[in-house]
Amino acid sequence: MAAEIGIRTALKTSFEEAIRKTTAALKMEGFGVLTQIDMKTTLKDKIDADFRHYVILGACNPALAYRSLSANGDVGLLLPCNVTVQEAGDSIAVTSVNPLEMLGALEEDATVKAVASEAKEKLERVISSLKA
Amino acid sequence: MAAEIGIRTALKTSFEEAIRKTTAALKMEGFGVLTQIDMKTTLKDKIDADFRHYVILGACNPALAYRSLSANGDVGLLLPCNVTVQEAGDSIAVTSVNPLEMLGALEEDATVKAVASEAKEKLERVISSLKA
Repeated sequence: MAAEIGIRTALKTSFEEAIRKTTAALKMEGFGVLTQIDMKTTLKDKIDADFRHYVILGACNPALAYRSLSANGDVGLLLPCNVTVQEAGDSIAVTSVNPLEMLGALEEDATVKAVASEAKEKLERVISSLKA
Repeated sequence: MAAEIGIRTALKTSFEEAIRKTTAALKMEGFGVLTQIDMKTTLKDKIDADFRHYVILGACNPALAYRSLSANGDVGLLLPCNVTVQEAGDSIAVTSVNPLEMLGALEEDATVKAVASEAKEKLERVISSLKA
């Protein structure tokens, strides 16, 4: 992978505990979980497909969202910041999107880039803290 | 803007009617709205910031999600497909993300690219249909 879209770790916990720990770690960096999509349940309900445990947490830091949205109304196309929690063999993979890598398709904007950089640092701390 | 991240239209309706029409048009193309984030309310509640009416609809076509997620577990970092509905002067701007432009940061994968291309065509029809 040339550009790394994900900030990653793997946890040796239950799936539910991984979600709980990730949500708590996000909160420590000012990200609320605005949405939580259970892909396994959604795919089973909608198209009767079997899929592994896979949850998408939609994390939003309101101060950063406000700054970036005020600079560029298209930023909402990239919000919230997704953090996926999924079964991966005998561990649980937790992966945050790297906001800096998401900006490729947005018009170059110094404010948005600065906010994305700040969000990236916060999300790196979130993922690092999960190992502790 | 070099790469166009958005598929756009503008409606001369109320904000609520634009959300309703967009949700209905998405359904016609097989996209359910899994999440709906009211940024105006969120920003007011969380940081007491005033922002214009701005809603992010998280749209998901389960069949396309299943095909792309099965090919690449990182696809969840880009799901659901966002469609923003926002006040824009005297009209309501409705903008869908262009899934093809979101793939830049993902590893090159023929299946994911094919699914993104299919999703893009569907979302173009959604946005076009709003004018009718």
